[in-house]
Amino acid sequence: MQDLKDKIIDMVKDDLAAIEIALKQNLSPQLDLVAKIAGHILFSGGKRLRPLIAVLSAQICGRDGDYVKTFSTIFEYLHAATLLHDDLVDEATMRRGKPAAHLVWDNPSAVLVGDFLLARALSIAAATQQPAVIEIIAQITENMSQGEIHQLSRKGKLDLFEAEYMEIIRRKTAVLFQGACRTSALIAEAPKEKEAALGEYGFNIGLAFQMIDDLLDYTLDTHVLGKAVGADLKEGKLTLPVIYALQAADAKDRLVMEKIITDKDFAVNDFKSLIELLHKYGGITYTQKLAKDYIKKAKNTLAVFENSKPKKILMMIADYSLVRQA
Amino acid sequence: MQDLKDKIIDMVKDDLAAIEIALKQNLSPQLDLVAKIAGHILFSGGKRLRPLIAVLSAQICGRDGDYVKTFSTIFEYLHAATLLHDDLVDEATMRRGKPAAHLVWDNPSAVLVGDFLLARALSIAAATQQPAVIEIIAQITENMSQGEIHQLSRKGKLDLFEAEYMEIIRRKTAVLFQGACRTSALIAEAPKEKEAALGEYGFNIGLAFQMIDDLLDYTLDTHVLGKAVGADLKEGKLTLPVIYALQAADAKDRLVMEKIITDKDFAVNDFKSLIELLHKYGGITYTQKLAKDYIKKAKNTLAVFENSKPKKILMMIADYSLVRQA
Repeated sequence: MQDLKDKIIDMVKDDLAAIEIALKQNLSPQLDLVAKIAGHILFSGGKRLRPLIAVLSAQICGRDGDYVKTFSTIFEYLHAATLLHDDLVDEATMRRGKPAAHLVWDNPSAVLVGDFLLARALSIAAATQQPAVIEIIAQITENMSQGEIHQLSRKGKLDLFEAEYMEIIRRKTAVLFQGACRTSALIAEAPKEKEAALGEYGFNIGLAFQMIDDLLDYTLDTHVLGKAVGADLKEGKLTLPVIYALQAADAKDRLVMEKIITDKDFAVNDFKSLIELLHKYGGITYTQKLAKDYIKKAKNTLAVFENSKPKKILMMIADYSLVRQA
Repeated sequence: MQDLKDKIIDMVKDDLAAIEIALKQNLSPQLDLVAKIAGHILFSGGKRLRPLIAVLSAQICGRDGDYVKTFSTIFEYLHAATLLHDDLVDEATMRRGKPAAHLVWDNPSAVLVGDFLLARALSIAAATQQPAVIEIIAQITENMSQGEIHQLSRKGKLDLFEAEYMEIIRRKTAVLFQGACRTSALIAEAPKEKEAALGEYGFNIGLAFQMIDDLLDYTLDTHVLGKAVGADLKEGKLTLPVIYALQAADAKDRLVMEKIITDKDFAVNDFKSLIELLHKYGGITYTQKLAKDYIKKAKNTLAVFENSKPKKILMMIADYSLVRQA
């Protein structure tokens, strides 16, 4: 799988370099503090997956160039804004192997720089002068905040069901991927059919991406993950592997799991026991299978496009989402 | 001055009622928690000054109706979003005579509901399908966050000068008033000249409004103000009355003032001494005079409009901004 990642990176290295430049050029903060905090979150080894699929979506519709790269920054700025606010909301301690911004600086700075990045994204969207594009992007931000609030309001609750989990990840993650692909098709003046297909592609890999992200919390160690393993559980966030295993478990094991889940200071051994139970009751396999289904769906929607380099890369990114280790 | 306020309220009571309905109808939160927190900040006796001047700006250009009221909610939602975030940033304890939202709920909820209100405002803006309108509103949010960050970065600093103070209040307050008036003119399809005049009107009353707001912290008691008197000082926020008096004071009095300003737990008597020094060195009078100049400018810009009821009310609101007690 490392091979696949390297192969993708090699194929998109020029685009990634152009995205990197665009991210620096379009930030245009008037203040040092903003540059520092935004830089901490923006330039600390993010995968640039969101701007990259935006760029590839424009390319697959036949449009490329500097404007496309500038446009793609919207989705990284939105993502960075929510990371700043969410890390604060979740009282997260680490992000991409570095201390979270609200700890390096403080809560106020993280809140305000998040607001700035959100506003920056919307200004770039507004500059397109395309109402349909702007409306989609405004609605992304609305969905993301509501997804986060929904998640927050169900924190620590053991009665979170799969449907509610899906609704949360739809809003907080999939809608952004969907919007990145769909608006890039709009920017490229693609026909409706292709616009819809790219939206579907983004939506489905967004769902899968979040599921795998949630899974990594139970399968990786801290060093690889770049944040504390078991963080979701410590924050009271129930994700699909746990939700599924909880409903499948027998009464005795369910009690064991619930005890670990509700204990904020669970020991490493407790966490290991929980992971064993997630395996025993199929929580890991089920999540993997579901993510796989969404990836399959995502790839199928690209059938409307002729073969091309961007198409090939979008297919590879879909595959990679499933097997990624970080 | 109470008379002036009552007179204005009597003249706009139908508009205010319609704004109130629009604020409830357009919030459309999917979640209870959002409705509660947004309601706490939105429906707790705000003056609705921002949506009101938006509505009056549309009316003075010959447009009125439900659409104008819906549009005007943008500026109250943006305002409420920044209140939620700023109260958290400033660790404020009270707002409009009630405990601040981040204390009733928690920081995470205040952050996320603020994000939701910001996104809601931008969605309503996007729904106008008018790029010029949307761009102005996106830039308002960018300016507001940068104004707040600027203020935060200079917190507790004694070397804040008038020019920097003006820059901060321009971004964090005046740009919102300006945008509310200007985009309403755009919505009303007003000629360029009138659009510019309304922008100028909003900008100038915005500056004056913030100056008087900052002044009230030194002239009112807690009960009338609805938040703790001396709060700005406790938060390390130097505002014009203090900035002016500091630079005008002799060395001895300057030292006395600096001691009180930098002491986070200053006693009531210290605060009274400080207020005396603000008077002695003209900080209060200077701020009042400057605010008066901006109000005069605001009123003069309305000369391009024929006499009408909305014009009369906009003139009265300008006068009221100067004499208001809360």
